[in-house]
Amino acid sequence: MKMMIDNILVTGRLVNEIKNLVANLQLSQSFRFKEEATIQQDDFMWADAFVGFGPSPTFHLEELKWVHSLGAGVDSFLRGTEWNKNVLLTRTVCSFGQKISEYCLSYMLSDLQNHHLFEKIQTEKRWEVQPPRSLASQTVIVFGTGKIGEELAKKLTHFGCHVIGVSQSGKPNPSFNISGSIKETSKYFQQANWIINTLPLTNQTVHFFNDELLSNFNEAVFINVGRGDSVHQPSLLSAIDEGHIKRAILDVFDEEPLPSTSSLWDHPNIMMTPHISAVTSPEEGVNCFIQTLEKIGRNEMLENEVDVMKGY
Amino acid sequence: MKMMIDNILVTGRLVNEIKNLVANLQLSQSFRFKEEATIQQDDFMWADAFVGFGPSPTFHLEELKWVHSLGAGVDSFLRGTEWNKNVLLTRTVCSFGQKISEYCLSYMLSDLQNHHLFEKIQTEKRWEVQPPRSLASQTVIVFGTGKIGEELAKKLTHFGCHVIGVSQSGKPNPSFNISGSIKETSKYFQQANWIINTLPLTNQTVHFFNDELLSNFNEAVFINVGRGDSVHQPSLLSAIDEGHIKRAILDVFDEEPLPSTSSLWDHPNIMMTPHISAVTSPEEGVNCFIQTLEKIGRNEMLENEVDVMKGY
Repeated sequence: MKMMIDNILVTGRLVNEIKNLVANLQLSQSFRFKEEATIQQDDFMWADAFVGFGPSPTFHLEELKWVHSLGAGVDSFLRGTEWNKNVLLTRTVCSFGQKISEYCLSYMLSDLQNHHLFEKIQTEKRWEVQPPRSLASQTVIVFGTGKIGEELAKKLTHFGCHVIGVSQSGKPNPSFNISGSIKETSKYFQQANWIINTLPLTNQTVHFFNDELLSNFNEAVFINVGRGDSVHQPSLLSAIDEGHIKRAILDVFDEEPLPSTSSLWDHPNIMMTPHISAVTSPEEGVNCFIQTLEKIGRNEMLENEVDVMKGY
Repeated sequence: MKMMIDNILVTGRLVNEIKNLVANLQLSQSFRFKEEATIQQDDFMWADAFVGFGPSPTFHLEELKWVHSLGAGVDSFLRGTEWNKNVLLTRTVCSFGQKISEYCLSYMLSDLQNHHLFEKIQTEKRWEVQPPRSLASQTVIVFGTGKIGEELAKKLTHFGCHVIGVSQSGKPNPSFNISGSIKETSKYFQQANWIINTLPLTNQTVHFFNDELLSNFNEAVFINVGRGDSVHQPSLLSAIDEGHIKRAILDVFDEEPLPSTSSLWDHPNIMMTPHISAVTSPEEGVNCFIQTLEKIGRNEMLENEVDVMKGY
């Protein structure tokens, strides 16, 4: 379906950077760049398209033809609301796979190369040889075999990791050494050194990492670069206590910023980062948005269109 | 030249592990497995071949036909002595390139992903977004374009790093984005984020990293996975003071174990590890030795033969 997009409302934390970048592009469309809190009813009446990281406080779909998410996840748009299927929803697909790969590899390598041990023995002026372990000795279970999980698998297998991809559909994906549904892959869970969550948040993945799933693992390190709500937090804490999970590295939380009252901050087996594993840069955000806008204008296939029924 | 190897003397820190592995192989040769300190004159009279990490205290070449180094570097055999060119010298070539790549990447990624910052702000229960920098934004100068430097370049360019290889000969190497002699590549030094030394220690590379060379850089991080003696230590310390070098990550030292009196231990800009970036495992050590032994028996080309004039 060909669609005329004339008026575009842009918001979110990158609004000023995007305004400057778009100004250089001499586009034929009209733009309004607004902070989320200042968007009014009139803006939504005017706009054909909404561009942001999530719905603004006054967000509603009625007059919109297209919503473009500046992030990879669209759960904030879809969850808890009724989407109008006539409104196109697209998401940002850029170098997130590479970014998340580097994030995961950094923590895997820090562990395998004994960074903390060597830092400690240096302060003690001790020479204590402890050979690193190689990536090729590691088994990694990646939950989610979409664009991000796939790119991660390519990077990990390049180093000889044994990478198993788990997806809802179980559709085979050749970027993984093995891929399939939970049922097909659960026999490998026991031998996993690493579990990496890249799943989108949908009604099917809320509290997906629960007691039952986590009890399959044995001293694995859990990395969450997906969404905080995919993890049932009490289950994760029990799994750490029981040794199913050795350590957790969390970049995403059910509430962000994580409140200072959370018990996660000073848990000795939890390492956390403030949702930085795949930050959209202004340049990449604008590139993806402009490419999508141009494809819509030419009525071309959109690779970043969200299936609102599936939620990703 | 075909060579009969019947009697093999094995020594060094892996001697017991190698003894066990060799025992399973049903080889026709005779072996003596000895700790370095217990090797006697008679052992050298008996042996055709010597296998170890370096010369034992009583080491001499007279009756030997072949010396095989269990490490990648052969400087301990060649430097300060006169080698008899009739004696074949081979070295261990195995997954050292992969190992050193993982070592270097671990420290590069830890820095680019702000590990220390995030560790600190977690203890302060602070949510402070600091986006990681990507490997693709980094320029790396690799000194040494041999097997190890080449494998490192392949891994780094896979992530989009801009990798420049520097060698004595300047011979082009397609695994690097750019390669050449110091003269040909020095124009890139100013923009380097990382300098990695993989050079072998020879008479040409002793104190190679001196004031003159290091003054070309601007806030680069220096990683030494080659040999400690390639660096003139006072020059490195001045280069850190003057900002040419931002930080040094050292795995090798002119004296090992590093004496507790060394000023390097508590230098705030020096991170050190106890020569672990490329540890020979017993299995890999035996594999490479056996392959070399078999090739000698069949009079085949040896890829791991050392050019004793060049020293590598």
